[in-house]
Amino acid sequence: MTAEDPGALTVLPVRGLPEIDRGARLGRMIAERFPLADGDVLVVTQKIVSKAEGRVVAVDPDDRAAKVALAESEAVRVLRRRGDLVVTETRHGFVCANSGVDLSNVAEGYAVLLPLDPDRSARRIRDELRGLGREVGVIVSDTFGRTWRRGVTDVAIGCAGIAAVVDLRGQRDGLGRELVATEICLVDELASAAELVMGKSSGVPVAVVRGVDRAFLRESSVAGEVVRHFGEDLFR
Amino acid sequence: MTAEDPGALTVLPVRGLPEIDRGARLGRMIAERFPLADGDVLVVTQKIVSKAEGRVVAVDPDDRAAKVALAESEAVRVLRRRGDLVVTETRHGFVCANSGVDLSNVAEGYAVLLPLDPDRSARRIRDELRGLGREVGVIVSDTFGRTWRRGVTDVAIGCAGIAAVVDLRGQRDGLGRELVATEICLVDELASAAELVMGKSSGVPVAVVRGVDRAFLRESSVAGEVVRHFGEDLFR
Repeated sequence: MTAEDPGALTVLPVRGLPEIDRGARLGRMIAERFPLADGDVLVVTQKIVSKAEGRVVAVDPDDRAAKVALAESEAVRVLRRRGDLVVTETRHGFVCANSGVDLSNVAEGYAVLLPLDPDRSARRIRDELRGLGREVGVIVSDTFGRTWRRGVTDVAIGCAGIAAVVDLRGQRDGLGRELVATEICLVDELASAAELVMGKSSGVPVAVVRGVDRAFLRESSVAGEVVRHFGEDLFR
Repeated sequence: MTAEDPGALTVLPVRGLPEIDRGARLGRMIAERFPLADGDVLVVTQKIVSKAEGRVVAVDPDDRAAKVALAESEAVRVLRRRGDLVVTETRHGFVCANSGVDLSNVAEGYAVLLPLDPDRSARRIRDELRGLGREVGVIVSDTFGRTWRRGVTDVAIGCAGIAAVVDLRGQRDGLGRELVATEICLVDELASAAELVMGKSSGVPVAVVRGVDRAFLRESSVAGEVVRHFGEDLFR
């Protein structure tokens, strides 16, 4: 009923990270600044992961055509255009604005691209922390728009050591009836919960979710479990 | 850096609620079972709100045509069909499966419909709690699928006393550049965070998020701020 309830979750900001450069060892940097516990789920924003992986390119911020061309070069398919906005399908299969290419929180004249393989990025951070004696789940998050709803929310673009989708099908509901379709996208909900504390304090690119059910701490993949590929949805 | 960090959030399950009948006073029932604090944000699942409001109708669970007809009767527009699934736009403007009509966690032979005005439902609970001396935000949540991603997540279908969308446009990013498009759908992220503790413990239809920025505790509306109306998106 209170914070001691075993069903409670706590979401904590990781403070004090410096500007991230190429080659930064994010796992170590986080562990040095936050007392991680086994079973914690770490949510790391894509921006610092991409910077650590050198996924930064030069682009003239005043050259609209160049920015659109950059977004298109990161896409396998352009789904819609409206003005400078392109809604694309990225190589990973994500459908988002401008292929996730981002010009905020990066030096003027540069853009940050999505990691080439965000599941692998998450696994790398997880492995690094395991080497330091900490067993955690890791989510790489980004901020996406939605088709039918205004406002953006944070979602997972990669994960390691945490179930991406939790399948409750076949379990019984509170009245004993079999549940038919309750595959919950756990990593997207965790990414959204983490954003709540990142947004509260500016300059916080990492948050820790503490109290996640241990049964969900297993190997998993956003690419494999969350991405709905071309032909699997009703709107592409 | 730890649970005492003022930037931390805690998500707590509200336990011990009985099966909800028509006319139930949800605010009082919750306050009697959970030590609410001023500034808490209460997330209440649509199912118990609908039950309290009598939004329950009889339907033969084996009659597929009747179930589809019921979903259609709750819709203003059918966007897609695949087998028994209809993706509809509800009267509220929500795009979801089967108009949100739900046959789980309700007595056999019955279906639960969405509240007629979920913002008003949230406001009623908020007002009830205010009458008991508690100043809280209230979100009515439901579980929706997404166009491009597998798995469902919880989103807000109504709110009161909490900002639906937080507009960070015009603020500066960490490097002093003006942010252009960061309207965050706060209530959807809060609904997702709440689902994480509801899913952990079965039979928990209400959760409390503690630690939300006081600046976000203002009057707001999902219908007015989150719903993207027909013609506002690129995919309908």
